[in-house]
Amino acid sequence: MIDSPIVKNNPKLLVFVPLFYTVWSDSILTPSEISVLEGLLTSQDWLSEQERKFLLSKIDPKQPPSVDELNTWKTAIAQVTQQSQTKETLVNLGIRLASLQGNGTVSETLDKARPALARIEGILGFISHEAIFNFQAGHKTITSEQSTQRNFDVAEMTRILDGHQAAIINKVKTLLSDPEFTYVGPGDLDLYRKQVLQWCKFLADQGYGAMAYPKEHGGQGDMAAYFAIMETLSYHDLSMVIKFGVQFGLWGMSVYFLGTEKHHAKYLKDIGTLELPGCFAMTETNHGSNVKGIETTATYDHATKTFNIHTPFELARKEYIGNAACHGQMATVFAKLIIDGQDYGVSAFVVPLRDKKGKLHPGVKIKDCGRKMGLNGVDNGVIYFDHVVIPKENMLDRFSSVSEAGKFESPISSDNRRFFTMLGTLVGGRIGIPRSGNSASKSGLTIAIRYGDQRRQFGPEGGTEVPILNYRTHQRRLMPLLANTYALHFALQHLTERFLNRTEEEMQEIEALAAGLKSFATWNTTATLQECREACGGKGYLSENRIEVLKNDTDVYTTFEGDNTVLMQLVAKSRLTEFRQEFANMNVFTILNYVAEKAKTGITEMNPITVRNTDEAHLLDPEFQLNAFKYRERDILTSAAKRLKRHIDSGMDSFDAFNVSQHHLVQVGFAYIERIILEQFIEQINKTSNAGCKATLKKLCDLFALSQIDKNKGWYLEQGYMEGVKTKAIRKMVNQLCWEIRQDAVPLTDAFNIPESCLAAPIAVRS
Amino acid sequence: MIDSPIVKNNPKLLVFVPLFYTVWSDSILTPSEISVLEGLLTSQDWLSEQERKFLLSKIDPKQPPSVDELNTWKTAIAQVTQQSQTKETLVNLGIRLASLQGNGTVSETLDKARPALARIEGILGFISHEAIFNFQAGHKTITSEQSTQRNFDVAEMTRILDGHQAAIINKVKTLLSDPEFTYVGPGDLDLYRKQVLQWCKFLADQGYGAMAYPKEHGGQGDMAAYFAIMETLSYHDLSMVIKFGVQFGLWGMSVYFLGTEKHHAKYLKDIGTLELPGCFAMTETNHGSNVKGIETTATYDHATKTFNIHTPFELARKEYIGNAACHGQMATVFAKLIIDGQDYGVSAFVVPLRDKKGKLHPGVKIKDCGRKMGLNGVDNGVIYFDHVVIPKENMLDRFSSVSEAGKFESPISSDNRRFFTMLGTLVGGRIGIPRSGNSASKSGLTIAIRYGDQRRQFGPEGGTEVPILNYRTHQRRLMPLLANTYALHFALQHLTERFLNRTEEEMQEIEALAAGLKSFATWNTTATLQECREACGGKGYLSENRIEVLKNDTDVYTTFEGDNTVLMQLVAKSRLTEFRQEFANMNVFTILNYVAEKAKTGITEMNPITVRNTDEAHLLDPEFQLNAFKYRERDILTSAAKRLKRHIDSGMDSFDAFNVSQHHLVQVGFAYIERIILEQFIEQINKTSNAGCKATLKKLCDLFALSQIDKNKGWYLEQGYMEGVKTKAIRKMVNQLCWEIRQDAVPLTDAFNIPESCLAAPIAVRS
Repeated sequence: MIDSPIVKNNPKLLVFVPLFYTVWSDSILTPSEISVLEGLLTSQDWLSEQERKFLLSKIDPKQPPSVDELNTWKTAIAQVTQQSQTKETLVNLGIRLASLQGNGTVSETLDKARPALARIEGILGFISHEAIFNFQAGHKTITSEQSTQRNFDVAEMTRILDGHQAAIINKVKTLLSDPEFTYVGPGDLDLYRKQVLQWCKFLADQGYGAMAYPKEHGGQGDMAAYFAIMETLSYHDLSMVIKFGVQFGLWGMSVYFLGTEKHHAKYLKDIGTLELPGCFAMTETNHGSNVKGIETTATYDHATKTFNIHTPFELARKEYIGNAACHGQMATVFAKLIIDGQDYGVSAFVVPLRDKKGKLHPGVKIKDCGRKMGLNGVDNGVIYFDHVVIPKENMLDRFSSVSEAGKFESPISSDNRRFFTMLGTLVGGRIGIPRSGNSASKSGLTIAIRYGDQRRQFGPEGGTEVPILNYRTHQRRLMPLLANTYALHFALQHLTERFLNRTEEEMQEIEALAAGLKSFATWNTTATLQECREACGGKGYLSENRIEVLKNDTDVYTTFEGDNTVLMQLVAKSRLTEFRQEFANMNVFTILNYVAEKAKTGITEMNPITVRNTDEAHLLDPEFQLNAFKYRERDILTSAAKRLKRHIDSGMDSFDAFNVSQHHLVQVGFAYIERIILEQFIEQINKTSNAGCKATLKKLCDLFALSQIDKNKGWYLEQGYMEGVKTKAIRKMVNQLCWEIRQDAVPLTDAFNIPESCLAAPIAVRS
Repeated sequence: MIDSPIVKNNPKLLVFVPLFYTVWSDSILTPSEISVLEGLLTSQDWLSEQERKFLLSKIDPKQPPSVDELNTWKTAIAQVTQQSQTKETLVNLGIRLASLQGNGTVSETLDKARPALARIEGILGFISHEAIFNFQAGHKTITSEQSTQRNFDVAEMTRILDGHQAAIINKVKTLLSDPEFTYVGPGDLDLYRKQVLQWCKFLADQGYGAMAYPKEHGGQGDMAAYFAIMETLSYHDLSMVIKFGVQFGLWGMSVYFLGTEKHHAKYLKDIGTLELPGCFAMTETNHGSNVKGIETTATYDHATKTFNIHTPFELARKEYIGNAACHGQMATVFAKLIIDGQDYGVSAFVVPLRDKKGKLHPGVKIKDCGRKMGLNGVDNGVIYFDHVVIPKENMLDRFSSVSEAGKFESPISSDNRRFFTMLGTLVGGRIGIPRSGNSASKSGLTIAIRYGDQRRQFGPEGGTEVPILNYRTHQRRLMPLLANTYALHFALQHLTERFLNRTEEEMQEIEALAAGLKSFATWNTTATLQECREACGGKGYLSENRIEVLKNDTDVYTTFEGDNTVLMQLVAKSRLTEFRQEFANMNVFTILNYVAEKAKTGITEMNPITVRNTDEAHLLDPEFQLNAFKYRERDILTSAAKRLKRHIDSGMDSFDAFNVSQHHLVQVGFAYIERIILEQFIEQINKTSNAGCKATLKKLCDLFALSQIDKNKGWYLEQGYMEGVKTKAIRKMVNQLCWEIRQDAVPLTDAFNIPESCLAAPIAVRS
């Protein structure tokens, strides 16, 4: 076109080159676009018939320009764009191009044609708008300019996270950086299990295993440190963590909490040094969640003063027992105690499995559970007992015992309550697991966020490619999960402190809190690592980048120490019990007052101004956020209670009533836990003095609060607690917070201070 | 208590035994409960002071009854419950117990005390209600009675699913049941890869590999059968499926679609028999999603008429290339064509990698990608080219070529458009992958649903344990996913048919459809298998039950053939283009009419009666469902277009405008795809004649439609398209449909007719 005689004769025709180039180079010419272009050409009265025909031929889909012709157009356009600094319309570019040939002056003809030309550009819309950048180098945008900043002191943030346990955390991190802790692959199961055992031995040698046991039995009596150790070890291989937890937590703590002084003296020291590897044999094939129903029997023999431990049928075997397949020499076995044919409910017994050389004792049969989705460094096994006889003193007799006279004795008369009291002493597992899972989330997020900050893909036309973490969808994927992880960190610290300083009266509440936080946190870990995997694309799929193993190892966290769905229902039942108490205390007048009080709160929160309030200051006000969480918690609980009552009053069996309401009850659990998490996050911010850290934590807290509200917006809208205008503003604010936090995202993961040797992922590690 | 002289003296005191038993046996005595009980006892004027004191001592938390005493209470109560058939209150039980001692007559005293006693029972609430069952055997409930039914003909449903491809599907299923296809574990990478290659060879020998190639090149020219084969093979090892797809799909189809007759004649036959294993080398480390930006070069040498294939720097290496690490002898390599220093964009070239013996050709360097999250039977590798020279005829020259004179030629002048046209011919991969993923979902659901139907846990007090699939939360986890899987099956068949019968004009639309369905389906697979894992608890975590491998193998489906998030944005852009065309055709009056038309539709759908309509017939009306989906699709698209325009008009760079709207654009993609899926499901039901199948499919379709609306209810409420009363009714209906479909769930998975040898999971397989 450029060199054709027609154009040489009338350089003004060059005005069409940028439009034509754009149409051909980028988008497919649609029939409607062709008709618009044809109309435009036809209406230009300054064109001769021949010129018009020539131009029409240039937009004929049947005769596309050759590749070389397209290149000559581009080169021509480049002449006028290289001078230009600012964005220009295609029409202006065309006029300048035409003028260039006409000695730099814009002819009157072209000036008159401008509006018609501009109209077609308007119809082409943003495509024409974008096209300009084809001709310019170094096109910069807000998106491409975003980058990592450091708006707070990373070391200070680490101090805030570590709190009182900083010293032991740093010690463990230093230890984990030792070459001893080089990862091994899961290919050879045998090798992997041996390595994991060796690591645990190494940790025991440092005194970490016995940390929580009393000093007189080789420990430090420091339970808080034990939790911090579990959490920190979880930056490394999680099979090691679980093996560690099985040995020193489940096995050791069951002896400690369910046994008495004679057991402590006999076993604890050797457990703490890993001289005596052991198991925690509670779950049976037929009874996992409903563990109260286990069927292994421990039958007392008056004559010999022994218990006979027995698996009465195939599916009453102990299953998934960690440490059982290879290394465990003893086990705490849960079994129904039978005396003279009478069933006295579940008690716990120490049962030897193997001798020091690993040879199984008579009557003990063990099968290997084989490969699992993850945690393949842990030797899970299935255990059968065929009339294994143990002496009377092997009964862990803190909560139940058999007297010298062969009579059952217990400070707790109800079998049910005794069983759950026993379980209650083991609630530490429901603290250790979510803390371990949250560490895995931190590792996954560190890898994915560092990668997203480096990895560039796509970019503005004519500009360089952009870090993928600058894309809004990428931010929406990862930033709320980063906020959740921080939020859970503080909530789990709160749970740990409440557990460590518990009184008898608080136990029920703490158990509910542990069950709920365990569920929320481990589900969050699963979701986080899934998102991290996808956010790293193909790189995330390679084992070397470790997101896979983090995901697969922690996947069972939602199942063990109690299935999350079942636990959330327990939380709900516990909440309903408190609710029941609240009502039981009230006479009719109090109830009326209560309802009136509730309505009053409603009036404040649900007035027509508040439900439509979209002010930034309001949305970021912790009082608004917490009120919204509390309102939801209270309303869902009340409606669940009413619903159950309505069903039961109408004659429905209570078991059915609970089943019909199950989905609702899980929401009761969530609403309670979410409120606790937010409350603790706000409290943490209040007590943070460092300004930079405080401001950054506030943003994370806002993101946590508002993304939870956004997730539950259907509910808030249904209730009339918010109107659409407000939920829309919240969504917008969530996006905005993601955009802002992205700048601090790398430092925020740096603050986790995970040893580089633990991260190990080539896409993330810094030299 | 029972045997104490006080009670012997006054047997009426036995009236308290059931209440006391319940309080002690089940729940913890709270202060409020104690005070209520104390109040009750104090107000009974028929009690002597001594009796009252005695009774108060029985509810003193400091003096719990002994285990044996509790047992005597239970035994006493059993005397009066064994006669009773129906549920009774604790008070009635107590009165009957007291009367038993008093020769069977209810004393006047007790009758008078009845209201006061009943009050305390009311305050104890459902706990007292439930307690009765402690004393009764065989407590049955609606929940425990639910069981698997067969409301439709399973074989007929299988015929509906298989459609025209039933014959080939059955052949493949028979083949897969051959002992040749016994699974191997992932422990030994080398062994596993060899086995996978052998399986593919076995399939090639049956003619399955070449199925889609023309008859003259050893095939059957049957692309429809090829897709059905991929889908059916996906009930077995997915490494095999991907290796099969790399060889016969990516490698073979790239030669077929991007090459010309000379390439077909030279390569296709050997590719189809697996004589010539090959790769598809497009992705580079630096360019995955933005594959247009690849940097490998193919420089033309006029003198020798050859191309020089070269990796210009480390991160321009080809990465994740299937078949590259071990077996590939050739590859279709995508590279920028350079002639005389001019870049002519991306073209494809056949490049030899290894000789028949596996020795690498000079200049080719390959590294093994090593272990991956899954698909470890596929040998992915990294390829570097160091000035590898190939003859001119190795250019796959359907869309671009170099003339004898050394000039670039192409029927498509724009590099951009040429590249995407080339990619467009390979869209089949985006059909094969989601169909494969949906098969994996079917396997996972079959395992989880069969297990849920058998596995019993918990149950009503005094009753047997209940299949976990009878629990509402378990149903809510699995039934909507079962509905999605059916819905996607039909939608993917529709996509396949559109692709097979495509015209040039439809290609853009079909590409968007494929991209969107690929994303929706593969995300659904990931979510489904995650849920199945959790729904099977510890059993789901054991590798032998195969959910793990299904999950890990398909996890990368959301990444390859295009990252889902990126693809959904492509879908959105395609939808915006259509939208732009719609507007371009309109003059001002048409636009006004269009808006008026839209408003009119709004008036019908959003009138105050409809937005509050909760009638079952309305909610289950396909017209209502489809209208809701369409409204959402249209509204989200319109608002995205307006939003983009507003940003650009306000001076925002279009790249930034798209980034700010990214989250919105992904929703545009979802809304479009969801509408298509629903439309196709409804159409499938309309053409189903068998009444049982039709009714069952209708339920699944209702569940799909309503659970999607429920998922998006926040949006519908924000828009005012529905009010809270309606979204609540929809949630209730979703629960109800889950409950109903649960009865057909096992037969619905039976209809997938997956070979038992493929399922293989011990928790699911039938002998």
